[in-house]
Amino acid sequence: MAAYAVGWRDVGGTPAPGASPGKGVRQTLAVLGAEAAGAPGKAGVPGAVAVELVHAFSLLHDDLMDGDETRRGRPALWAAYGTGPAVLTGDALFALAVRTVALTPDGVAPAAMRRLSVALSGLVHGQARDLAAEDRPWHGAGAVDTGEYAVTAELKTGSLLGCAVATGALLGGADDDTVDALDAMGRHAGVAFQLVDDVLGIWGDPAETGKPVHGDLRRRKKSYPVLAALAGGGRAARELRGLLAESGPPSSGANGRNGGAARSRDGGEEDRRVARVAALTEAAGGRAAALAEAARRLGAARACLRAVPLAPGPAHALDRLLTRLYGRTC
Amino acid sequence: MAAYAVGWRDVGGTPAPGASPGKGVRQTLAVLGAEAAGAPGKAGVPGAVAVELVHAFSLLHDDLMDGDETRRGRPALWAAYGTGPAVLTGDALFALAVRTVALTPDGVAPAAMRRLSVALSGLVHGQARDLAAEDRPWHGAGAVDTGEYAVTAELKTGSLLGCAVATGALLGGADDDTVDALDAMGRHAGVAFQLVDDVLGIWGDPAETGKPVHGDLRRRKKSYPVLAALAGGGRAARELRGLLAESGPPSSGANGRNGGAARSRDGGEEDRRVARVAALTEAAGGRAAALAEAARRLGAARACLRAVPLAPGPAHALDRLLTRLYGRTC
Repeated sequence: MAAYAVGWRDVGGTPAPGASPGKGVRQTLAVLGAEAAGAPGKAGVPGAVAVELVHAFSLLHDDLMDGDETRRGRPALWAAYGTGPAVLTGDALFALAVRTVALTPDGVAPAAMRRLSVALSGLVHGQARDLAAEDRPWHGAGAVDTGEYAVTAELKTGSLLGCAVATGALLGGADDDTVDALDAMGRHAGVAFQLVDDVLGIWGDPAETGKPVHGDLRRRKKSYPVLAALAGGGRAARELRGLLAESGPPSSGANGRNGGAARSRDGGEEDRRVARVAALTEAAGGRAAALAEAARRLGAARACLRAVPLAPGPAHALDRLLTRLYGRTC
Repeated sequence: MAAYAVGWRDVGGTPAPGASPGKGVRQTLAVLGAEAAGAPGKAGVPGAVAVELVHAFSLLHDDLMDGDETRRGRPALWAAYGTGPAVLTGDALFALAVRTVALTPDGVAPAAMRRLSVALSGLVHGQARDLAAEDRPWHGAGAVDTGEYAVTAELKTGSLLGCAVATGALLGGADDDTVDALDAMGRHAGVAFQLVDDVLGIWGDPAETGKPVHGDLRRRKKSYPVLAALAGGGRAARELRGLLAESGPPSSGANGRNGGAARSRDGGEEDRRVARVAALTEAAGGRAAALAEAARRLGAARACLRAVPLAPGPAHALDRLLTRLYGRTC
């Protein structure tokens, strides 16, 4: 099941050498972190492995908690094998990540362990905030605002990106200031990544994202563009508030479960509703606000890179990685 | 939810100062481990905290996987709050355990982390073996034998007891040989503890154990006494094999869900069946075999205590703790 979770095998256990186990952003960050500290990239490999194991663990448990039935075009592990096995497989990956860091040299293990434990707590804290946000109103007393959203995004996505590059640098022998700066870079990059993801989740091309049109709107996700639009004072924001206040529970097509077929048969009204929410969110400036904040975070990430002495080649590669994360919206 | 899991609050969040958060065996072992190494007991406290957090995490996830709806006389956390929150609360406790060990002094943190990671892997491995055993036959090809059972018990119960006392000693400054001997002591004690638990799960007084009469037999648990009885060659063993081979799925009273009321109304046949299984298990020597193996493990644990130099008072206290674990059957 762990081999299925990381994309190495299919549900029946057959090796699936062509299956994509994700984009490898975190592993790349860890290896570049070590190289940026002047060490060979392989010095960062235990960090890459540990962070990827934690990432796989968190996707696995999050899919179960969120009821998401697909992951990277395949059944989510809990949907394929059951709830209990998915919980246990996640725990096994978690334990293996701890073991991977515990086996690094004694000189760096305590610091690496502390970085990993902060990231772990951050992931759990972010997921708890995310689950709690689902039950809160879109607007008015108790509503989630964009500032809170950014904190959640930093915890859920930034913690582990920061941990990846920081642990790589740490294993590569970087000093505390450098490690901290790279951690901050990864955190900003994580928020930018999440904001771009939010824009793609509403306006992305399904052929490129692999997700259904307006998927995040169908599942009532409190994403940054909608929250930013709701905060506006104009006519579009007012209409959006009204539309969201009267909207019911998510459609059966939520979480990308149904693809397009069910919608075209009986989801016409829902299609029109989410298209209107998307148009109003854009008219009220939500899309522009999300992209502007992503650009600001990207700039902050770049500033972290420039704030400390790094090996030029790897620093340039980190910079290009940041550009690619943001460039997904073009 | 974490406060509920460790017994500090009730389901609604009200402090429950009288609620028992367990017997405290693991924390006691950690503190005695430090004292046995000649250090103040408080040196072992981070180990006690980390191990208790891991224990709480594993009970929480195990209850969810096993479908056990009660824990220490209260609803299991997943039954009280739901599956997703139970998964996340377990993850949070796990992350906090890692953090607790990561924050110990650099001189001992790597070794303590490695001990904890071995125990974590052991718990997961043991639970995986336990779940797999459920689907295996009682007898014949592919059956579970008592040797395999002991390995599972050492992983599920012994790993963490060994980790508790070993980590306490490690934090107290003990050398590797002493730490290893105490780890082995805890592992043997864990198997003995599990064997005594198995005997109590079949023949224990419900008023004392808090569990239903013959509970483990109703839920078809592959416990040591039954496995040992099945391995025998006599008439009772043969009848037992036949009875278990023809037995169906667990009754609705399995997992202690129903107490006695449902059984007395419609479970007469099941009552007679499990009483016969208990009688045959005893007649075929299963109870005696379990107690003999527990006594052997207890002796092995004591031998570990005597094999290394320890502070006499704490060593004596550890010895008495072993006696109490075994004495539960008297």
